Amino acid sequence: MTPRVVIIGCGFGGLFAARALRRAPVDITVVDRTNHHLFQPLLYQVATAGLAAPAIAEPIRRILARQRNVTVLYGEAQRVDVASRQVVLENGEALAYDRLILATGATDSYFGHDEWRAHAPGLKTLEDAFEIRKRVFLAFEHAEREVDPVKRAAWLTFVVIGAGATGVEMAGMLAEIARHTLRGEFRRFDPRNARVVLVEAMDRVLPPYTPDLSERARLQLERLGVTVWLGRKVTGINAQGVQLGGDRLEAKTVVWCAGVAASPLGATLGVPLARGGRIIVEPDLTVPGHPDVQVVGDLAFQPDHQPPVPGVAPAAKQMGRLAARNIVSALAGRPTRPFRYSDYGQLATIGRSKAVAMFGRIHVWGWLAWFAWLTAHIYFLIGFRNRLVVLIDWAWAYWTFERSARIVDLGARRRDD
Amino acid sequence: MTPRVVIIGCGFGGLFAARALRRAPVDITVVDRTNHHLFQPLLYQVATAGLAAPAIAEPIRRILARQRNVTVLYGEAQRVDVASRQVVLENGEALAYDRLILATGATDSYFGHDEWRAHAPGLKTLEDAFEIRKRVFLAFEHAEREVDPVKRAAWLTFVVIGAGATGVEMAGMLAEIARHTLRGEFRRFDPRNARVVLVEAMDRVLPPYTPDLSERARLQLERLGVTVWLGRKVTGINAQGVQLGGDRLEAKTVVWCAGVAASPLGATLGVPLARGGRIIVEPDLTVPGHPDVQVVGDLAFQPDHQPPVPGVAPAAKQMGRLAARNIVSALAGRPTRPFRYSDYGQLATIGRSKAVAMFGRIHVWGWLAWFAWLTAHIYFLIGFRNRLVVLIDWAWAYWTFERSARIVDLGARRRDD
Repeated sequence: MTPRVVIIGCGFGGLFAARALRRAPVDITVVDRTNHHLFQPLLYQVATAGLAAPAIAEPIRRILARQRNVTVLYGEAQRVDVASRQVVLENGEALAYDRLILATGATDSYFGHDEWRAHAPGLKTLEDAFEIRKRVFLAFEHAEREVDPVKRAAWLTFVVIGAGATGVEMAGMLAEIARHTLRGEFRRFDPRNARVVLVEAMDRVLPPYTPDLSERARLQLERLGVTVWLGRKVTGINAQGVQLGGDRLEAKTVVWCAGVAASPLGATLGVPLARGGRIIVEPDLTVPGHPDVQVVGDLAFQPDHQPPVPGVAPAAKQMGRLAARNIVSALAGRPTRPFRYSDYGQLATIGRSKAVAMFGRIHVWGWLAWFAWLTAHIYFLIGFRNRLVVLIDWAWAYWTFERSARIVDLGARRRDD
Repeated sequence: MTPRVVIIGCGFGGLFAARALRRAPVDITVVDRTNHHLFQPLLYQVATAGLAAPAIAEPIRRILARQRNVTVLYGEAQRVDVASRQVVLENGEALAYDRLILATGATDSYFGHDEWRAHAPGLKTLEDAFEIRKRVFLAFEHAEREVDPVKRAAWLTFVVIGAGATGVEMAGMLAEIARHTLRGEFRRFDPRNARVVLVEAMDRVLPPYTPDLSERARLQLERLGVTVWLGRKVTGINAQGVQLGGDRLEAKTVVWCAGVAASPLGATLGVPLARGGRIIVEPDLTVPGHPDVQVVGDLAFQPDHQPPVPGVAPAAKQMGRLAARNIVSALAGRPTRPFRYSDYGQLATIGRSKAVAMFGRIHVWGWLAWFAWLTAHIYFLIGFRNRLVVLIDWAWAYWTFERSARIVDLGARRRDD
């Protein structure tokens, strides 16, 4: 019988594993709980209305339509039974496998404060992006209706928690929206007076970057109008704002970009987990004692890899490809290969013509880094049409400061419902 | 004091009234329960994933940003107090007016069977369009997971109820999706075997058109693969399908395009209403006995207008413009003018190169009508950028049969939840 490969999750890791198996003599089943592959590095653009959701999401079936050895199933894996080699789906259906690739990625972690989630949504899925978009644009709408200046100021204060790449991008975009996009559209206040505060527990923004680039990024953020608070730990979040030890920020809109935890599926395997619930894997990405199970992307933790593998798209793609190759090797009786992350550089965008980039020892910032970021992101967006639409949207936004996707879809529901 | 004009609803009627008042010495407040003006004639394209929502929706504030005599408020009118000249909003806030324009439009009517709504959503708002998009594309996903052929057939049966313009468009698009868009993407069934049934209680499709064009439309629908059932009345709808007297259609996806009722705001005025809850108006669009209240668009009913004013965008625009003009006249002590609908023709599209059009006595169909429809709809789409994006999307879709917005956003929720 043709070996059955089951891939759970179709982000970068799962998708690249499936594609790398296109010529392999295997029957592949890809399971995802959405019908689309999401280009997560641009999700903040959907949250801030720069792009419509379809521009960064492609139906998984369409991407894999011509790969005849793949069946795509829309479903959610509930648990993995490594003893009987089965994945149990949400309706109780069991999928038997000969080889399994787990690629379910990461979710937000609130460091034990799950009650913060309702007041400070994270940014992992399209649903999250729509929720943040709605909160941001409705906050300005509420400010227009509010007569009390103190309450209005709370509607016009936006707090982003966590100054990693996503937090920096969110804060930069929020400042641009307030300063430029909404200019002249309100009658009772000036949106340029809105306050965007970026809070970070460490002593600099973009901690994975070198200190000189962190400083460049901070300066660029401040030039956009973002208030950067470093070395400040959040101690409380509620519907009225954020507590930072003795300090208080009255803010109706808070975005959480601070913590990442592994997908809960890892815990169902009954194997040892690392910090954040990630599955500890061998150098060849298999689970110790279970050579038929491989883990790729943010769900995997390689204790011996130095420096640690970052939680970025290129790492997930590289792991997905290697997992596919190792399956082919193992089925052919050849030895598997260890994973080694190839770092082609890191890019973080901040706003219009503002970014930082690190290619080995070469550090760039400002316009040049932004152009590199733009080129890389459009190049890697999957699907020709998407790239074209994204280009047009961005060219338009660059010249006009308009944002094309400002509509709030669940119009009838107000924020305080 | 500058006269206060309040406009409730910013569809075609409300928006065109506001714009027509741009040079009038009045203070205008526009209230809408969404933040966007919706180009409703293309809503079926969002429901069938041909367009992303932002392509047909523009923030009301952006459209009216430069009109300094307008304040836009995001809110929902609960009732109108004609005696004290106030509109009460959802939070109890009262907006006083000197002149009021009611433009809240229409909603779906289930002819007294509100229990059908859950199983057969209508198509009036973006939220409706997302719901239908989700149901349609998830039905195919469920079919791929279903092993029982009878149950699978129910997932692959789509029923559109009502063969007016929207019903015809929906049925045509659903047939194209099954025949072309999804071709080759499933492994366990052929989407071309999906069944699309268009049910109409009258004896022909597109009843407002002449019988020859109705017949042309029916033939074009059947060529696309739509099964047209005429003279059939729906007697029941539940989660499993549709009852038509003694006949039964087992179908998991039903779309309601059959009945229209006026917005419930009309009933709060305490004036006589026509069939469907519409407000009976004088020839100059004012409410009898309340010359300071005007009604435009689908909420208005003019008993003496022959032929009756159709519920289409051009009629709402014309009424909005006249209402604005009559307010200016009345404030200046000049007489108001009666409304007279100017019919520039009617267009209904069916699918790729398929449409019917009626310009007075000139009737066209097929490619020519489709081209006229395309030109008119792109021309009237508000905002330059939208037109460009729509053009690109459609050109792409025309050549590839792909649909750009097939993503289902609330991915984690399955249909039977």
